[in-house]
Amino acid sequence: MELLKQRIRNEGRVMAGNVLKVDSFLNHQMDIRLFGEIGREFRRRFDGCGVNKILTIEASGIGIACITAQYFDDAPVVFAKKNPTKNIAGEVYTSRVESYTHGRVYDVIVSKRFLGPQDRILIIDDFLANGCALMGLIEIVRASGASLVGAGIAIEKGFQEGGHLIRQMGVRVESLAIVDAMSEEGGVVFRD
Amino acid sequence: MELLKQRIRNEGRVMAGNVLKVDSFLNHQMDIRLFGEIGREFRRRFDGCGVNKILTIEASGIGIACITAQYFDDAPVVFAKKNPTKNIAGEVYTSRVESYTHGRVYDVIVSKRFLGPQDRILIIDDFLANGCALMGLIEIVRASGASLVGAGIAIEKGFQEGGHLIRQMGVRVESLAIVDAMSEEGGVVFRD
Repeated sequence: MELLKQRIRNEGRVMAGNVLKVDSFLNHQMDIRLFGEIGREFRRRFDGCGVNKILTIEASGIGIACITAQYFDDAPVVFAKKNPTKNIAGEVYTSRVESYTHGRVYDVIVSKRFLGPQDRILIIDDFLANGCALMGLIEIVRASGASLVGAGIAIEKGFQEGGHLIRQMGVRVESLAIVDAMSEEGGVVFRD
Repeated sequence: MELLKQRIRNEGRVMAGNVLKVDSFLNHQMDIRLFGEIGREFRRRFDGCGVNKILTIEASGIGIACITAQYFDDAPVVFAKKNPTKNIAGEVYTSRVESYTHGRVYDVIVSKRFLGPQDRILIIDDFLANGCALMGLIEIVRASGASLVGAGIAIEKGFQEGGHLIRQMGVRVESLAIVDAMSEEGGVVFRD
């Protein structure tokens, strides 16, 4: 998706530790018009797949997921929570995830009331790198008996293994910008 | 807002510890069509106020804030983060907040790059109870030199002190449903 690549080229900053900062438009300040274009593109790619629910994970996936849902007939969006809280009662699906960004392990949780065999799920997230968060969401979808249509990702770090591993599992992954290499000096190189 | 009150009456569950669970449509599963109506109502109430940026806090405020932004000419949305992460570099505004839901204290953080004197801020959040989170966001807006237009809240617990305290500070607070009393037996009583 050329518009997204342009924004990454113009505003993205490569930092030490393989961090690509896109906080001016994607995951701290959010460009709602860009999110609309992202949602439209996910619709184009997953058109006719019968998506009736969108699953994401807090926090930075939520904005893209909500705007994208408008292009899927206002499908409800469920966001997985990263910590057990008082506000989730009853039974939940859980999966253990290791966060690259935060350097810690946490449980991902979705209430069983909101995922089931009648659901055709599109997973939406802002980043795919080592794939741990996405793997956790896939595990939860499978445990619920829902059908997994695929995963729509804004930015994939193609030089990390997540995308490869998850596609090998037979999951359809559509990433709008795949970064094949990046460095503080040379900037970002996209896959064609 | 009658539509929101109906949903709270029909689907809300009052739990021990003054918890009002609305996780089927507001803060775990999210009803995107309802969010559209909420956004439209916030626009009606803050029309002509020159809002050019929306500020919210992770995680459950993000969805409402992003959909609402579409009714304010796609104003950018900034979400405050609850934990310092590797992905926020440089200078930040911080404020200390005590979470009623999670029973802990955390820092709320917004990058200085995304708030400044040119901004006219509408704060959006899903809940207002003791007001600590909102107070933290107000403190950050004031520190940045931005103008605070007001706060748009989906559900206010009117029997807790937050709304009163913050209105006393001279901040305009618009809550779409104000709960004046609730109990596990008697359900929810709304302010007129």
